[in-house]
Amino acid sequence: MESPTPTPTPAPSSSSSASAVHPGIAPISYLLGTWRGQGEGGFPTINSFSYIEELHFSHNSSKPVIAYSQKTWKLHSGEPMHSESGYWRPRPDGTIEVVIAQSTGLVEVLKGEYDAEEKVIRLQSELVGNASKKIPPKCAFELSFE
Amino acid sequence: MESPTPTPTPAPSSSSSASAVHPGIAPISYLLGTWRGQGEGGFPTINSFSYIEELHFSHNSSKPVIAYSQKTWKLHSGEPMHSESGYWRPRPDGTIEVVIAQSTGLVEVLKGEYDAEEKVIRLQSELVGNASKKIPPKCAFELSFE
Repeated sequence: MESPTPTPTPAPSSSSSASAVHPGIAPISYLLGTWRGQGEGGFPTINSFSYIEELHFSHNSSKPVIAYSQKTWKLHSGEPMHSESGYWRPRPDGTIEVVIAQSTGLVEVLKGEYDAEEKVIRLQSELVGNASKKIPPKCAFELSFE
Repeated sequence: MESPTPTPTPAPSSSSSASAVHPGIAPISYLLGTWRGQGEGGFPTINSFSYIEELHFSHNSSKPVIAYSQKTWKLHSGEPMHSESGYWRPRPDGTIEVVIAQSTGLVEVLKGEYDAEEKVIRLQSELVGNASKKIPPKCAFELSFE
């Protein structure tokens, strides 16, 4: 995940299909499909920037796992920025694990909870491994999908 | 990466295109496209099994990074098995970093070297993070793509 918070809206190409969903991912199957939105990125050390973000969640019905990929690109020039991919693994007890590899050379493990009724997923980053460093730093920030 | 060693062969759908390649990934651009092969899996604790593996390497010419995804499925039943995705990041000095997220809830950082002329890439697993455990185990095994 990138730090900027986009506000994705389902794209017309959303291919969510409740019929072929593994029961284990049914509580968060509303994620399935392609989501696209515009965001504003801000970091202390660089100029703010506008970007487009696209998230894609897909599912193979034989396992309770959702495959995830994300891309961002600059709003005005269309130049690609960040990309990442990984897997979302909900559990029957309402917890969820997310594993992500990033194009910048990071891997990330996030954990959290989902509320199927409210359609809220809260994730906390538990591990960030950096390919450029020998020992991965730990960090703890929170993401909320509502 | 899974432990079984497949022998991928380029599929007809290989879309390698040298013209649009970022100079930074040119030394390993022969990977680009879709590779498919059959393998035999063997672990000490389970029965051996035959499987099909497909690797896909793609590239966005604006950055020196190759996006990677892999899937395996059972040879006879077609049932999906493992999948993983991530990024391959070659450097001008002949070293390479690979970051991978796995459908089983693992993240992995691999490092190694590539030999552009011999078309050999050797990777060593430097970090494996497991979403089901608080502290990630370290391990060191080697992979060789020749």
